[in-house]
Amino acid sequence: MAEASGDIQTLIDLLARLPGLGPRSARRAVLLMLKKRGQVMAPLAQAMAEVALKARDCVRCGNIGDADLCDICRNEKRANGEICVVEDVADLWAMERGRAFGGRYHVLGGTLSALDAVGPEDLRIPALIDRVSDEGVSEVILALNATVDGQTTAHYIAERLEGRVRVTSLAQGVPVGGELDYLDDGTIGAALRARRSV
Amino acid sequence: MAEASGDIQTLIDLLARLPGLGPRSARRAVLLMLKKRGQVMAPLAQAMAEVALKARDCVRCGNIGDADLCDICRNEKRANGEICVVEDVADLWAMERGRAFGGRYHVLGGTLSALDAVGPEDLRIPALIDRVSDEGVSEVILALNATVDGQTTAHYIAERLEGRVRVTSLAQGVPVGGELDYLDDGTIGAALRARRSV
Ligand SMILES: [Zn+2]
Ligand SMILES: [Zn+2]
Repeated sequence: MAEASGDIQTLIDLLARLPGLGPRSARRAVLLMLKKRGQVMAPLAQAMAEVALKARDCVRCGNIGDADLCDICRNEKRANGEICVVEDVADLWAMERGRAFGGRYHVLGGTLSALDAVGPEDLRIPALIDRVSDEGVSEVILALNATVDGQTTAHYIAERLEGRVRVTSLAQGVPVGGELDYLDDGTIGAALRARRSV
Repeated sequence: MAEASGDIQTLIDLLARLPGLGPRSARRAVLLMLKKRGQVMAPLAQAMAEVALKARDCVRCGNIGDADLCDICRNEKRANGEICVVEDVADLWAMERGRAFGGRYHVLGGTLSALDAVGPEDLRIPALIDRVSDEGVSEVILALNATVDGQTTAHYIAERLEGRVRVTSLAQGVPVGGELDYLDDGTIGAALRARRSV
């Protein structure tokens, strides 16, 4: 397909690679942008260039932000002493949308997986263990997906932290096989409030 | 929702306004871009800025390109003398994907509409009439959508050009691969009336 002229086709091809977009949606998106070059396309290009330049992983928790420490780690209004452990940034965002947690996060960057040969040292698990000692943490809340790998990872972390800190996990209410990012905000809040010791 | 930090949230909000994307797909797209800042995000921002800067409407046919005349108008391999009239650039792209037409185009920029008070002078209809005289056109193919407004527009143009040039329109019928059971009655009726000997 090369029906559009060079630059425009490049843009369509790049957009079509994003999740949720195919060639058809990418074409429609580009046409809308072309119609609103000033209001939509230029600001979007600007925001994207800005983020590509500035975005970096938080050195403490693994969240994405625009400085060494992310917004959440820098926020003095949030409680220290509680760390919510999530697989990735999408899950952190999902938790924040639930508006039920006011502590700190730790983003693992994935789950343990025998199949994909992902071990503890491939994730931010050693950093989590260090934080528990260094930051005077009283509770670690495991907010991992209810998948096999998610639960394997939760059990592994719970064992590593046994006797050192209270470890809890989100209550049942997260459907079996369910991914946090697909849940409605209220479900996440309810599951958090009903969390229990592992 | 302000769970992501400022710039990132701005980017999500802008992307979420594109057709086919909602807040959820926009978040997933941004996360993928953040993971592939170098390979995906930077080139996308670059392509977008480039297009926003360069894109313009072809002065002859109304297609979008990067110069006064679009790629198709500039292409010397395409046949003069046949103009395919379409509503918008999306339809021009669709025709090009069909690879069945090797002539020139004329993009109206919409359809006549009594309801929305769109008259001939709001579209590129006067420019089309001029082109028919100026370019020695032998056939105008009306490739307008099979909607009420599309067909009203087709009839208006056919009347204006009557006696000056051959005016044709796309055949109506069963789409290739189309199953009768899934077609609306109008399409089946049109296909039956336009039936031909095998
Ligand atoms: Zn952080
Ligand atoms: Zn043109």
